[in-house]
Amino acid sequence: MTDTVKHMKWWGWGNEGVGFHHEDKPGFAPFVEKAVGLDLGSATRASEPSFEDVDVPASRASEGFVRELTAIVGGEHVTTDDMVRVIHTYGKGLRDLVRIRGNQILRSPDVVVYPADEAQVQRVVDAAVAVDAVIIPFGGGSNIAGSLEPLPAETRTVVSLDLGRLREVVDIDADSGLARVQAGAQGPDLEAQLNAKGWTIGHFPDSFTHSTVGGWVATRSTGMQSDKYGDIADIARGLRVVRPGDVLVLRPLPSTSSGPSVREMILGSEGRLGVITEVTVQVHRIPEKRNIYAYFFPTWEAGVAAMQAISESDASPSITRISDARETAFTLATSKKRSGFSKFTAETALPKIMSSKGWDLDTICLSFIGYEGGVAHAKHQKKLVDAIVKKHGGMGVGEGPGLLYDQKKFDTPYLRDFLLDMGAAGDVSETAAPWSRLNQVHDAVYEAAHKAYAEIGVTGWIMSHLSHSYHSGACLYFTFAFVFQDDPLTEYDTVKSAIQQAFVDNHATISHHHGVGREHSAWLEQDISPEGVKVMTALFEGADPGAHFNPNKVVAD
Amino acid sequence: MTDTVKHMKWWGWGNEGVGFHHEDKPGFAPFVEKAVGLDLGSATRASEPSFEDVDVPASRASEGFVRELTAIVGGEHVTTDDMVRVIHTYGKGLRDLVRIRGNQILRSPDVVVYPADEAQVQRVVDAAVAVDAVIIPFGGGSNIAGSLEPLPAETRTVVSLDLGRLREVVDIDADSGLARVQAGAQGPDLEAQLNAKGWTIGHFPDSFTHSTVGGWVATRSTGMQSDKYGDIADIARGLRVVRPGDVLVLRPLPSTSSGPSVREMILGSEGRLGVITEVTVQVHRIPEKRNIYAYFFPTWEAGVAAMQAISESDASPSITRISDARETAFTLATSKKRSGFSKFTAETALPKIMSSKGWDLDTICLSFIGYEGGVAHAKHQKKLVDAIVKKHGGMGVGEGPGLLYDQKKFDTPYLRDFLLDMGAAGDVSETAAPWSRLNQVHDAVYEAAHKAYAEIGVTGWIMSHLSHSYHSGACLYFTFAFVFQDDPLTEYDTVKSAIQQAFVDNHATISHHHGVGREHSAWLEQDISPEGVKVMTALFEGADPGAHFNPNKVVAD
Repeated sequence: MTDTVKHMKWWGWGNEGVGFHHEDKPGFAPFVEKAVGLDLGSATRASEPSFEDVDVPASRASEGFVRELTAIVGGEHVTTDDMVRVIHTYGKGLRDLVRIRGNQILRSPDVVVYPADEAQVQRVVDAAVAVDAVIIPFGGGSNIAGSLEPLPAETRTVVSLDLGRLREVVDIDADSGLARVQAGAQGPDLEAQLNAKGWTIGHFPDSFTHSTVGGWVATRSTGMQSDKYGDIADIARGLRVVRPGDVLVLRPLPSTSSGPSVREMILGSEGRLGVITEVTVQVHRIPEKRNIYAYFFPTWEAGVAAMQAISESDASPSITRISDARETAFTLATSKKRSGFSKFTAETALPKIMSSKGWDLDTICLSFIGYEGGVAHAKHQKKLVDAIVKKHGGMGVGEGPGLLYDQKKFDTPYLRDFLLDMGAAGDVSETAAPWSRLNQVHDAVYEAAHKAYAEIGVTGWIMSHLSHSYHSGACLYFTFAFVFQDDPLTEYDTVKSAIQQAFVDNHATISHHHGVGREHSAWLEQDISPEGVKVMTALFEGADPGAHFNPNKVVAD
Repeated sequence: MTDTVKHMKWWGWGNEGVGFHHEDKPGFAPFVEKAVGLDLGSATRASEPSFEDVDVPASRASEGFVRELTAIVGGEHVTTDDMVRVIHTYGKGLRDLVRIRGNQILRSPDVVVYPADEAQVQRVVDAAVAVDAVIIPFGGGSNIAGSLEPLPAETRTVVSLDLGRLREVVDIDADSGLARVQAGAQGPDLEAQLNAKGWTIGHFPDSFTHSTVGGWVATRSTGMQSDKYGDIADIARGLRVVRPGDVLVLRPLPSTSSGPSVREMILGSEGRLGVITEVTVQVHRIPEKRNIYAYFFPTWEAGVAAMQAISESDASPSITRISDARETAFTLATSKKRSGFSKFTAETALPKIMSSKGWDLDTICLSFIGYEGGVAHAKHQKKLVDAIVKKHGGMGVGEGPGLLYDQKKFDTPYLRDFLLDMGAAGDVSETAAPWSRLNQVHDAVYEAAHKAYAEIGVTGWIMSHLSHSYHSGACLYFTFAFVFQDDPLTEYDTVKSAIQQAFVDNHATISHHHGVGREHSAWLEQDISPEGVKVMTALFEGADPGAHFNPNKVVAD
């Protein structure tokens, strides 16, 4: 195993020794009990899984093939070790963790290889194709859409091609605001290299701490400040993709009319068109000012209308986000004692403020709006936004909660793992839709989730926020939780499927920024129409006739 | 012939009776003589071509097939008339006009059909595929990249499918700023329908008066205010595309991660993936304020640096454009006597202003910068930009020239046709590149053009402007002219090819917004790499295995 490439826990999210704790959040346990009927005081937390309990399918890689890979990358960078293969078997979706904790590893990569550079990637790809093997590119392993797993029915040798050693910022074109970055660079490493020279990528997805540039491109990631910096589809201007025999090279361009966009075919391809080795991304000078302000709205409808009005206005904030009443209640109830929210919690000032305004504590919605740029620009933007907020009945409550949000935004997956320890599902589903459909989608998803909970016979929880505003619509992000009864994966499917079906039934997409993988492919036809899937399939099959690159992802056979 | 669908002149740009005149532009003739050695006073203007001189290949459409089409669309909407077929043979590129004036029509569509709606388009497509015919969708016919012509070697029946009767704004989703528009709607018709309800699309390409929504999508068009409204790739959110047996439907979405973007495959597909029948476009409330201001910079380098600084700044103008010294000289010399420029022409104030600043009249560059939005916003943007202009040594000269630019921006193709009447080529080539490459591209193109002129043995002219700024780069737009010697098309190829080769040799793309067609396909591999072309070819061949849809465009066999 390459000791220079750090992996997440084999059985869960994040680094060894880091986890979620609620001892400093007195409102958390009562909230969980009310929301999903789980008494954290009496429930037993599962102990950390032991790798000895895991049955790992034997590697099918031939000695000759492993020798060939060894000749390319060196003995210390190719392995058939069981734990390394398990780490490369799944991403970190709820289904992945349930399976890995439940000893359900039906198929594993047969060999994991860590090339040092693009030339080695090319040689690995060519060697794999020559023996009719399957190649699954692996970045940070944070995927939650099932994009990484080898299929149980796969009889060919499966190679997990880990990009972890390709993590340098190769070059910064300061005049153009363009940085050439190796695909395996993880968020913090990339940003540190950029920051050191005064730049930022401005792309901070929830997975930031453990996801890679190549993974962002492969799955069409979106970061928190997308209102200003764009989705990764906007940020990634140039690409290098290793394909059998040669590298596909798209030089960085601000825009082009050179036919159907090959760049936009690689984006979202989840490994099916080759191995992304380098991305030229837009970078920006670190802004003079970067603030996140908190606002309250009397109702969800008022808040959504305000976000829409902001997107239509001359204002250009970096973040627009609003939690619905349930997510707001969750945030307020589960904050640390001494946090930016402390002055708003139930015991303190919030009820007074609300009653003075005639607001209902059960319907208020918390919003975060970000401003970036020069001092005068950030101030001007806030002034424009504040006027719109006021017109929609909202009120500003300063920077404190925003600071807190900014600090804890990457912690949610640890909470998900904690709930799993306690025998409960906690997961997310997200979508995007035109502004005119957002309330309809929101309500339909709630109805679908509650119907699914009733079917399972549990008290389930669902909450939502709007984020990532565009001219014509926004992303809706749902978080749901319930206590497993008898059959975790079937129960999970019941809820998750109900939500996904509600998306496509209400003019929303199957995913705004998590990708398709195996989790969402069943709804692809309903999203982009049968002919859309036909065209996409034509691309996959024509560009990879031997099905060597991560087959059956996005579009399943 | 459908008399409800208006076509441009069969032999040139625009409406019958409209043309370029220079009688009111005293500086024009001397300028032309100096630039390309053409004495407009003594040269003879070619008379309008007579259709009687044109040999039109006989229609190969079988009677049975024409009968079938007639059954679908009605007798008055299907024709094998020679003039209509000639109108649908080419776009309006220089090569097209030279060929049409030179009686070089080697292959023509065999039948032209004007369906009334999407259902009829579907039936026409299915009927055509059933008899193994070729379908070439036709919008306004303004294409200048050779995307419309049937190939001489084509032995199958060729159907020109004219979308001219599909021109309605079907619906406006006011909450989302989205309008469903039929693909055949031409610019002015579309904008009038939108304006009537308080909306604008904000997309005004040079071809606006004679191009269609479907054509914009099929060729990846960009309009003048793209800095604010985006390219058509940003504007077109939803699509309907008729394919054999079914319609490909992409519902309008602000953003999505549903795999490789099928939307971005249709964009730029130039008819190869099916017939675009409807586009859902972003629309905006007509802005309170819309101004274009003129500025002068002492040199091209100073002006480009200012545009780059603006793109990097907090300012967000709607237009950023700067002409180089030669284009500036052309604009000043060829303006009408009583125009916004009159006070700046050589006889009046300009020399005084320039000498007072120590500027050289031979190097000054004219720039236009646009501001749109609320009154306060437009004013604020201008203030931000003015400071950047000043820092780069530029000076503002008010709104007069900008108004003029706005009025005459759609007239350039008429000038091109006038020069053709006089035996001279006048044409354009445009590209995009990162900011750091723009001066290199500019100089390399000039060198390449002058080398080509020397080869032909003529005094040639070339001038350029920068427009359409993005974070990482901009579009460079070149206009070139020379007097034909012996063999117009060979000489045209010499110059045009030299320019295109200079683009790809200097990290610029083959086209920023004109598309690929037949004109630019020879350079596609050098632009997006051989593997990029392989992937694109896989898409075309897989999605249209029978090669029924505009074959051999973008990628040539």
